[in-house]
Amino acid sequence: MFSKDVYIRRRQTLLAKMKEAGQSGLILFVGNAEAPAQYKDNCYKWRQDSSWLYFMGLDEPLMAAILDIDSGSETLFADDVEIDDIIWMGPQPSVRSKADAVGIAHTAPYGALGQAIALARKSARKIHFLPPSRYYNTLKLMELLGCQQTGKEASEALVKAVISMRLIKEDIEIEAIDAACALGYEMHSVARDSIAIGLVEQEIVGKMEGVALAKGWGVSFPTILTQHGETLHNHGHAAVIEPGRLMVIDAGVESNEHYASDFTRTYPTSGKFTARQREIYQLVYDCNELAFSLTRPGITYREVHLATARKMLEGLQALGIVKGDLDEMVAEGIAGLFQPHGLGHNMGLDVHDMEDLGENLVGYDPDQTRATQLGLRSLRMARRLVPGHVITDEPGIYFIPALIEKFKKEGLGKDFVNYAKLESYYDFGGIRIEDDVLVTADGARRLGPRRLPASPDEVEAAMAR
Amino acid sequence: MFSKDVYIRRRQTLLAKMKEAGQSGLILFVGNAEAPAQYKDNCYKWRQDSSWLYFMGLDEPLMAAILDIDSGSETLFADDVEIDDIIWMGPQPSVRSKADAVGIAHTAPYGALGQAIALARKSARKIHFLPPSRYYNTLKLMELLGCQQTGKEASEALVKAVISMRLIKEDIEIEAIDAACALGYEMHSVARDSIAIGLVEQEIVGKMEGVALAKGWGVSFPTILTQHGETLHNHGHAAVIEPGRLMVIDAGVESNEHYASDFTRTYPTSGKFTARQREIYQLVYDCNELAFSLTRPGITYREVHLATARKMLEGLQALGIVKGDLDEMVAEGIAGLFQPHGLGHNMGLDVHDMEDLGENLVGYDPDQTRATQLGLRSLRMARRLVPGHVITDEPGIYFIPALIEKFKKEGLGKDFVNYAKLESYYDFGGIRIEDDVLVTADGARRLGPRRLPASPDEVEAAMAR
Repeated sequence: MFSKDVYIRRRQTLLAKMKEAGQSGLILFVGNAEAPAQYKDNCYKWRQDSSWLYFMGLDEPLMAAILDIDSGSETLFADDVEIDDIIWMGPQPSVRSKADAVGIAHTAPYGALGQAIALARKSARKIHFLPPSRYYNTLKLMELLGCQQTGKEASEALVKAVISMRLIKEDIEIEAIDAACALGYEMHSVARDSIAIGLVEQEIVGKMEGVALAKGWGVSFPTILTQHGETLHNHGHAAVIEPGRLMVIDAGVESNEHYASDFTRTYPTSGKFTARQREIYQLVYDCNELAFSLTRPGITYREVHLATARKMLEGLQALGIVKGDLDEMVAEGIAGLFQPHGLGHNMGLDVHDMEDLGENLVGYDPDQTRATQLGLRSLRMARRLVPGHVITDEPGIYFIPALIEKFKKEGLGKDFVNYAKLESYYDFGGIRIEDDVLVTADGARRLGPRRLPASPDEVEAAMAR
Repeated sequence: MFSKDVYIRRRQTLLAKMKEAGQSGLILFVGNAEAPAQYKDNCYKWRQDSSWLYFMGLDEPLMAAILDIDSGSETLFADDVEIDDIIWMGPQPSVRSKADAVGIAHTAPYGALGQAIALARKSARKIHFLPPSRYYNTLKLMELLGCQQTGKEASEALVKAVISMRLIKEDIEIEAIDAACALGYEMHSVARDSIAIGLVEQEIVGKMEGVALAKGWGVSFPTILTQHGETLHNHGHAAVIEPGRLMVIDAGVESNEHYASDFTRTYPTSGKFTARQREIYQLVYDCNELAFSLTRPGITYREVHLATARKMLEGLQALGIVKGDLDEMVAEGIAGLFQPHGLGHNMGLDVHDMEDLGENLVGYDPDQTRATQLGLRSLRMARRLVPGHVITDEPGIYFIPALIEKFKKEGLGKDFVNYAKLESYYDFGGIRIEDDVLVTADGARRLGPRRLPASPDEVEAAMAR
C-alpha cells in the first residue's frame, strides 16, 4: 500500500475530473468479495479489484465506498470484526483505522450501503459506477440498483476519468512495476533452467509458479507454457517435453503490491535452434527490437504495430514464404496470418490494464477506430504514446495449420502467400518474444533491472549454462 | 476422468433415487464458468463444479445438462468451438464426442438451455437444481428461472439424493484420494524440510504450492502456514520465521482428477520441542490416535469428537490448566475453549465435501441435531459411520488470548478453568495434527501410502534429517 496522501490525491483528482466533465451525483465503488472455487468457504486466492486498489488501497474483501461529487464527502462501508471472527482471524484493526490509513473521513457498516443508495435513488441523484469485473459485483449492483443490465448502465464519464488517471503511471507505480519485472525475471530464469527432455510441462509450471508465490502474490495471469506456441491460449500442461521443439513461455508475476509483469520467451527444447527455427526466431527478435527502437512519445502504437508487421513480411519474403509488394501486403493485413494478435497492451495493476473498463476506451484515442483486419483488430493498445505509458512489446510468428487452411480455402492472400512453401512449416509451432516497456520523456525503457536473454545467441548461451 | 460407465451408472442411480423419493420433472445441472480474477479474460485457474464432475465428468467451462426424471432422457448443453477459437485454443473435440465420452444421448447449444427451461416452466414441470456454489451459477439460475432466491429454491430432494451418493466413496474414488494424499505427503515433506529461522513464511508457501502445481491441480484450499496457530484461519504469510515457535501447516493437494487431501502438522521452528510444547503436542497426538482407534462403522463421529474432548480435558487437568469433574467439563463444553472447532469433516471432490449443499444435510443424520456449544457446534461431520466415509481426524489445542479473556470476563467455565495458569500460555500459539481417514468394513485406514511424521519423536527426527 502507498501512503495516505497518494489515495487522497487520487480521489480528489477523480472528483475534479468528474466535475470538469459536468458530472454530479455519487461515485459508487464496490470492492471485491472472496471468489468461491468450490463453496463459499473454499475460495480462490484473495484478489482485490484493481480500481478499488488504485483509489482506496485497502486490500480486503467486502468493502464499498461512496464519493459525493457535489459535496466532496467520502464514506467507507465495511464491517468491524466480531469476537467470533477474532477466534478465527486474530485481532484486526478497526474499520475506522483502515479509513484513516487512506484518508477517508466517514465510515459505515457494509450493510448500510443499501440504504445510502436507496436514499440517493429516491432523490434522483445520479449514481456513477464502473462496469463490474466479477459476478459478485454484478449481483451486488443488481441488488443495490435493481435487476438491470449493470454492464450497460455503468458510467462512461467515470470510466473515462479512471482510465485517464490509471493509464499514465506515477513514479511510485513504475517502481512497483520494475519490482514485479524483477520477480518475473527470476521466475522465467527458473523456467528456462528447468527445461529438460522427458519432463511433463506441468512440472516446470509448478516450479515457476512456486517462485511467483514465494516472492510475490503469484502469477499475474495463468501461465502459458507449451511446445505448441501456435495455439495462442494453450493452458494445458500435460505434454511431455520432446527434443527439437520450440517452447513458448508467456508468464508474469504479480508483486505483493499487485502490479504485474508479463514476459514471453521461446526456447529450443534441445538447447540449440535448428537452422529453420533460428531464421524465424531472428525475425521475431528483429521485430521486437524495431518496436522498442520506435517507441517514444508522439508515435502511435498502431504505427509501431504496422512497422513491425512490415518488417515481419519483409523477412518472410526473404524466406520465400510470402511474395509481392510490401506496402500492399501490409495494407491487406497479410501479417495477421502469421501474427493474429496485436503488438502489445497496457500493463499496470492488471496485466491487460483496465480491460474490464473497455478495451477500446483504454487502448484507443478518441480519433482512432479499431480495425477489423485479422491481427490489427486484436491490437489492444493503439494510442499515441505519452510518457508514463507502460506497454508490452510482443511480436510473434506462428504457423497455425487451421488458419492457413482457412485462408487458402477462402482464397485469402492468394497473390501474396506461397502456400506450397507454408505447408512445410505445419510442424513448426510458434515464437513470441515479449518485453515490458515504459514510455519516457524522450524514448522508452525496458522495465525490470535486467532483460531476459532475447537474441538467438543469448538464448542458446543461457541454455548452455 | 473415469470411464463412461461410471457416469452412466451414477446418473441412473440419481434418477432412480429421485423417483423413489416420489419426485418428477427435470434435474438441471449448471456447470461452472471461468471465474474472473480481474477481468473476464484474466481468470483464476479453471475449476469445474464438483457435483457436475461427479455426474458428468466433463472438465470444461460453460456446460449444462438436463436429466428428465420421467422419461430418463439426458441432454448436454454446450457449444462447439468456431474457427476463431481454434486459432486461440487449437483443434477441439466436438460436443457430440464429449457427450459420447460420458454416455449422454442428446446435445444442444449452450444458448438453447433458456428455451428448454422456459418450455418446462410453461408446462409447470418441476425443475430440480442444486444450490449454486458460485456467483456465476447464481446469476445463470436467476436468468433461467427469473429473479429469485436461487439458494432457497434449490431442491432438497435432489440435494439429499446427491449427498447420499457422494458421501459413500466408491473404490475408484478411494484410489484417487489415496493418490491426492500421496501428493499431499510430498508437499508437506518439502514444507517441513524448508523451515528455517529467518525465512519469510511466504517463501515456504511458494515452495509447497509449487510442488502441488507440479504434480497435481494445485492446493485443495488456501494454505495455512503460521507461527500463530491460535489464529485458526490465518492466510497471511508475511512473518519472518522465529526460533522457539510452533509452526502450524494445514495444506492439501487436489489431484488432477480433482480429489482432495488435507493434512496438518505442527513443527517446532527450532527443530526440537520445548518441554512445555512437548506436553501439549503429546496431548494433541494422543487425541488424534484415540480418534483413529475409535473410528469404525457403527459409532457416530459426534461420539468420537466427544471422546477426544474428554481425553484433551484429562490431559489439561494433569497439567493444572483445568480442574474438576471430567464428565461435567465435557458436558459444559470446556474443551471448546481450547479446540473451538470440530474433530473433522467429510472429504472427497471438495476438501469440505459438498459444503455447498449444506453442512447439516451432509454431516448430520436425520436423528442428529447440531449443538450450539462452542467447539461441538463447529463439528462438520457427526454422522454414524459407515464403510466408505472419508473423514479428517484433526484435534487441536490453541491458546487464544481474546477467547480466554472473553470466557473469563463472562464468567464462563469459572468452576473448571485455572485462568491464572492459562495466562502463562498466552504466547504459546497452537497445535493441530490432521490425517485423512477411510472408514472400512471393520475399522478405519489412514489414507495415502505413508503417514507424515506425527508423534513428537517422529517429528523431531524428521526435522533433524
